[in-house]
Amino acid sequence: MKHLVLFIFCSLTLGLNAQSDADYLKSIYKNSLTNGQSYQWLDYLSNEIGGRLSGSLNAELAVEYTKTELENLDLDRVWLQPVMVPKWVRGTPEFSYIQTAPGKTISVNICALGGSVATPLQGVKAEVIEVQGIEELKALDRKDVEGKIVFFNRPMQADLILTFEAYGGCVDQRYNGAEEAGKLGAVAMIVRSMNLRLDDLPHTGAMSYGNTPVSKRISSSAISTNDAEKLSGMLKIDSSLKLYIKQSCRQLGDVQSYNVIGEITGSEFPDEIITVGGHLDSWDLGDGSHDDGAGCVQSMDVLRLLKISGITPKRTIRVVLFMNEENGLRGGNAYAKEATRKGENHVFALESDSGGFTPRGFTFDGPDYKVDRIMRWKPLFEPYLIHYFKKGGSGADIGPLKKSTNVLAGLRPDSQRYFDHHHAANDTFDAVNKRELELGAATMTSLIYLVDKYGLNSIEEIPQLKD
Amino acid sequence: MKHLVLFIFCSLTLGLNAQSDADYLKSIYKNSLTNGQSYQWLDYLSNEIGGRLSGSLNAELAVEYTKTELENLDLDRVWLQPVMVPKWVRGTPEFSYIQTAPGKTISVNICALGGSVATPLQGVKAEVIEVQGIEELKALDRKDVEGKIVFFNRPMQADLILTFEAYGGCVDQRYNGAEEAGKLGAVAMIVRSMNLRLDDLPHTGAMSYGNTPVSKRISSSAISTNDAEKLSGMLKIDSSLKLYIKQSCRQLGDVQSYNVIGEITGSEFPDEIITVGGHLDSWDLGDGSHDDGAGCVQSMDVLRLLKISGITPKRTIRVVLFMNEENGLRGGNAYAKEATRKGENHVFALESDSGGFTPRGFTFDGPDYKVDRIMRWKPLFEPYLIHYFKKGGSGADIGPLKKSTNVLAGLRPDSQRYFDHHHAANDTFDAVNKRELELGAATMTSLIYLVDKYGLNSIEEIPQLKD
Repeated sequence: MKHLVLFIFCSLTLGLNAQSDADYLKSIYKNSLTNGQSYQWLDYLSNEIGGRLSGSLNAELAVEYTKTELENLDLDRVWLQPVMVPKWVRGTPEFSYIQTAPGKTISVNICALGGSVATPLQGVKAEVIEVQGIEELKALDRKDVEGKIVFFNRPMQADLILTFEAYGGCVDQRYNGAEEAGKLGAVAMIVRSMNLRLDDLPHTGAMSYGNTPVSKRISSSAISTNDAEKLSGMLKIDSSLKLYIKQSCRQLGDVQSYNVIGEITGSEFPDEIITVGGHLDSWDLGDGSHDDGAGCVQSMDVLRLLKISGITPKRTIRVVLFMNEENGLRGGNAYAKEATRKGENHVFALESDSGGFTPRGFTFDGPDYKVDRIMRWKPLFEPYLIHYFKKGGSGADIGPLKKSTNVLAGLRPDSQRYFDHHHAANDTFDAVNKRELELGAATMTSLIYLVDKYGLNSIEEIPQLKD
Repeated sequence: MKHLVLFIFCSLTLGLNAQSDADYLKSIYKNSLTNGQSYQWLDYLSNEIGGRLSGSLNAELAVEYTKTELENLDLDRVWLQPVMVPKWVRGTPEFSYIQTAPGKTISVNICALGGSVATPLQGVKAEVIEVQGIEELKALDRKDVEGKIVFFNRPMQADLILTFEAYGGCVDQRYNGAEEAGKLGAVAMIVRSMNLRLDDLPHTGAMSYGNTPVSKRISSSAISTNDAEKLSGMLKIDSSLKLYIKQSCRQLGDVQSYNVIGEITGSEFPDEIITVGGHLDSWDLGDGSHDDGAGCVQSMDVLRLLKISGITPKRTIRVVLFMNEENGLRGGNAYAKEATRKGENHVFALESDSGGFTPRGFTFDGPDYKVDRIMRWKPLFEPYLIHYFKKGGSGADIGPLKKSTNVLAGLRPDSQRYFDHHHAANDTFDAVNKRELELGAATMTSLIYLVDKYGLNSIEEIPQLKD
């Protein structure tokens, strides 16, 4: 009898809650699609400011702009969190060609990888050794590599459905390639762009020299996929052809920058903090619309959409626009460090850093019982075609907030087109669809609404959803 | 005991089948993503041929090209099915401006709707009456409309998640607007383009005069969404402004054309026919890449992917590239009529006519027990992020095949960007992503594989999937 009463009570409560939650989600989606602000903000960030490499003037303009826009939202607090960031500059445009005989050259499209050193002033010209990855390189004799340019050409695996998995399977070449090639006496390294498509655009991205002394560092560049195919094809015919590379990038001293933060203070549990964010810095070749202007403006709109949907959060909802995700993660680290110093209780964090495409769902990193609880909200998202709720990674910037007790999440948009644009000159505003961006903002807001309303602390405190 | 044995038998059989089916799907997706032909075919259709309006030279070139390509696939039969199609021609480019005072004009972007008559040779210039739809128009007095241009300006509803629903809620203005405006003495009609985005491109599409005598037909045009907003805004300031429209389109006599058909004859049940198709004709403003070049090349690749994945169909799998979906449906009607004449048994048909975007699933139209059976295959599609299996419509071309006993299906891709391009000058090859197109082809092939393997006739004939 006790169980029956409990069952009826739970069913009724559930019925009421479910109805009300469904209504709130409907209102959130409607507000985003008909009265969203994300696209307008992104237009400004992308077209009025542009690429926002850490330490650049544009990055500082973006800090000022987004701070002002957050202030206009009438939040409870808006502030800048200081963080020192690395400043790497590309210098004059890179130049590269394949030379098959004296005077016979073919230009190829390259760009310096972020953090790379320049070539010598006159450039570097050398024979090329092509490898499919770091393991293949390590198996070579020093004499096969010394004095040559190492060309990493393992393509992204096209038959993986999640393109981030294909990226994960290749990016070691870009990140560690120069260090490993340098150890064997290479004079430069070049890597096939992390792009599933064949086109003419080189894609930059972070690289590391590990413990390589400054004097032993070699230039590292990305080559467009079309030109990678061309170079590889020509090498099969003439292994003694030469590649010329010239780039003038430089690593300067660290400079002052900021995370941009705004919050709505929780009405019941102000000490429980829910963070939502993206990163404000971007690479310099495009305008950083997908990576990660989209995530920033969506996160800003989460707080605005909560407000205009009539939701008063119980917990503190904080938007954080992190600085320097691309080449240092200084913003994410500073935010977590400050949270620790203040003894803040970060119960949940959500990052959008996978492009402004149609949202498909989320991945969650946290204790099983908390993630299980979130999974039970999945039916609420079905009308919005949000179906992907999985355990998995969250986002680079929020990663440092990880504790054994909290949940970190990442928005998962459709990923098919992401690497067509990622870190390249065509990561631009025109590649973002307004509705897709707004659906992402609404999906994030809906999840934040539910986490805030019910919390994640105890599986017992709210009525169980019936399977 | 009998039940236990049956249960064990079914579980084992299921286990084996499920494993094998998962492997086949994996192979189909891999083949499409690494060795697909759809993108290459679409490149030719779009960039070498272009827009394929029924009755045009391009439409005939497309018939020849796709027939040859199907012949190259080594199918059991390839043929052309004759069908007479209407021939409507746009003539010289349309021209339109708003006039606020003598000599003060602002150009606006319009295009004739398919099937419209021309304006008088000197064009038509008249005051404008704006309405939000046909009901609002019908409520007006004849004197409010007579001698004016009726401007239908109800926008697509942005808060609907499925954009086809938003289209369905507006398209009556385009299709029936001229007939209704003509009844009240309007001299022309113009309709806001069926586009969720604000941009400068007018979107054409079919319209009908109903029973209006030829002498009483008025010109009908679409205006870009930006110019619809402009015209509406200016009318609020000055309701006596005039709009000038000139277009020289014509409806000519019917001409000979063809459905293009190829088939693999079934090895066990050759009389059970499974049709997969799209429509080969398109509007003339763009090159018809999404509508519906994509559906054609995906359907062609279904037969090719079955072959290269080592699948020998039990039933006859037939690809049909229908002619004249856009302004007549003659191809779809002819195909169904011929099927009836021959007494063919069409057990299943699948159409792809919603763009070449990331596939999300299918809608199914058929008897519940057959659709329920298909629903049980849904878990096989989860690794490919295909989650949307719903009862619903199928496709215009296969609609005439409908019987109470068979199942018709439509591929449902992500719809957010579809109406940015639909029937407009930017429905072009560059708006199609290769992977998204190929995922669609693989998803269609996978469903066809399952329908062919298990059939849909009886829920008892194969082991039940356990819930």
